[in-house]
Amino acid sequence: MIAVDWGTSSLRAYRLDAQGQVVDARRSDQGILASAGHFAEVLRGQIDGWPGDLLLCGMIGSRNGWIELPYLPCPADTPALAAAMQRHEDASLPGRHLWFVPGVATRERSGVPDVMRGEETQIVGLLPTLGPGRHTVCLPGTHCKWARVEGGRLVDFATTMTGELYALLRRHSILGKLMDGDGDDLHEDAFERGVTRSGEPGGLGHHLFGTRTLGLFERLPSNALASYLSGILIGHEIRDRQPIGDVVHLVGGSGLAQRYARALGLLGVGSMRHGEDLAATGLHLLARQRGL
Amino acid sequence: MIAVDWGTSSLRAYRLDAQGQVVDARRSDQGILASAGHFAEVLRGQIDGWPGDLLLCGMIGSRNGWIELPYLPCPADTPALAAAMQRHEDASLPGRHLWFVPGVATRERSGVPDVMRGEETQIVGLLPTLGPGRHTVCLPGTHCKWARVEGGRLVDFATTMTGELYALLRRHSILGKLMDGDGDDLHEDAFERGVTRSGEPGGLGHHLFGTRTLGLFERLPSNALASYLSGILIGHEIRDRQPIGDVVHLVGGSGLAQRYARALGLLGVGSMRHGEDLAATGLHLLARQRGL
Repeated sequence: MIAVDWGTSSLRAYRLDAQGQVVDARRSDQGILASAGHFAEVLRGQIDGWPGDLLLCGMIGSRNGWIELPYLPCPADTPALAAAMQRHEDASLPGRHLWFVPGVATRERSGVPDVMRGEETQIVGLLPTLGPGRHTVCLPGTHCKWARVEGGRLVDFATTMTGELYALLRRHSILGKLMDGDGDDLHEDAFERGVTRSGEPGGLGHHLFGTRTLGLFERLPSNALASYLSGILIGHEIRDRQPIGDVVHLVGGSGLAQRYARALGLLGVGSMRHGEDLAATGLHLLARQRGL
Repeated sequence: MIAVDWGTSSLRAYRLDAQGQVVDARRSDQGILASAGHFAEVLRGQIDGWPGDLLLCGMIGSRNGWIELPYLPCPADTPALAAAMQRHEDASLPGRHLWFVPGVATRERSGVPDVMRGEETQIVGLLPTLGPGRHTVCLPGTHCKWARVEGGRLVDFATTMTGELYALLRRHSILGKLMDGDGDDLHEDAFERGVTRSGEPGGLGHHLFGTRTLGLFERLPSNALASYLSGILIGHEIRDRQPIGDVVHLVGGSGLAQRYARALGLLGVGSMRHGEDLAATGLHLLARQRGL
């Protein structure tokens, strides 16, 4: 079988053996935005030489994707997600079945829904590791997801726009004008100062402006300002989520997950890191549950 | 005399009579960014036909302005600001004196300084109206200033990036993609829902994402989403400033000040509005104090 995690801006394809182990992996930046209108063609290119049926999760199952699946409501578990998978065939992929995994929506608080597509499958892949009990899972990214898992079920989650705010402020705001460097190199001391600052009075909108004045007054070098900004944003996000006392399960092998681990540590919260290929594990578990 | 409030993106010139009353006013979008390198020429065009010396406040006295004045530290009052004004002459404006007003910096909390240039002069113009006692002054804008005035002195202030965040999210973020309309038309109900939402658990980064899901689930029409976003941002800003129990003095005649008044009202805080020409009043008071 082939597992495909197809998001807005990237596509990851995994060739799995019968036990669900990844035997080959390919990655592309042909996310659904870049692939719109020719999904089958893009997919064919990605899985060239790989036989078998396809399991797909992520934004490929959204309104702007290949087919649109309705959201499954929380609480959601592996059997419910497996039962809601939809089969699809495409003439240009003869002899193959395509199985799409739905996204998940929260039960609504305050009349404001929340949604995910793709992260639910990573969480399915993480469930055997978590085991029973209550767990907090954090999946950093452009739109970071904070999920609560209880007794093997995804019971609630919240999306935060931290990653997108960082990119906007870095690229388009007055704060970005003072910054040197590509911002991917973490200036550890500046990052920690930002996390600490996020706990002081004043609020996010005020703390952000401090990035500018620290630059203007040369209290931080220009190549450290992006890390300070990152610390402020991630610090506020973590404090708002109030995971104090928990161990947070961080998904993703990126430098971003490392930053979250560091910020959590500064705030006295433990964390455990989990690999980026959980979507492949989750898709395999869903297929097995479905009897494929 | 001529009063000039010269900011980053706009220039306002006022012709004053001996009592400091505005007898003529001109406005231009030739802020210091658009005028860099030819300030004298731009100014000559703006004051054509107006005799007298010039009083200038705002970013024109900054590193990227005509001449750079150091910041005056808080607490700052009219005599201190008047004493710190700097005289300048320019060959292309023969027979005229130019008097620049310095900006103000806070005494530092947490090692993070804060700064203003221009708003201190508006506050000087407001002081006679405020009288003695303690007052909270809010000057909405791209970078909103919240100032504390005590006994006729500006004792402290904080800058918030609310206006810039709104513009960034509207123009460049995933939230903007769902929005219709120019966003200047206030959808009152959506704005109030945003202000209310800002008081619920979750934090700003999470509440922002709700703008997207409310659009996706068609709970808010696309032409109401910008107002909802505005309500979330201004609601968070006001709650962070904690002006509960005060009357907030709002400076500015714009629709933006109206939004702040509405949000403050929703949160049970009174407000008073003050006109946009306070910079002219402030510059006149500073000139009189200086004996010009």
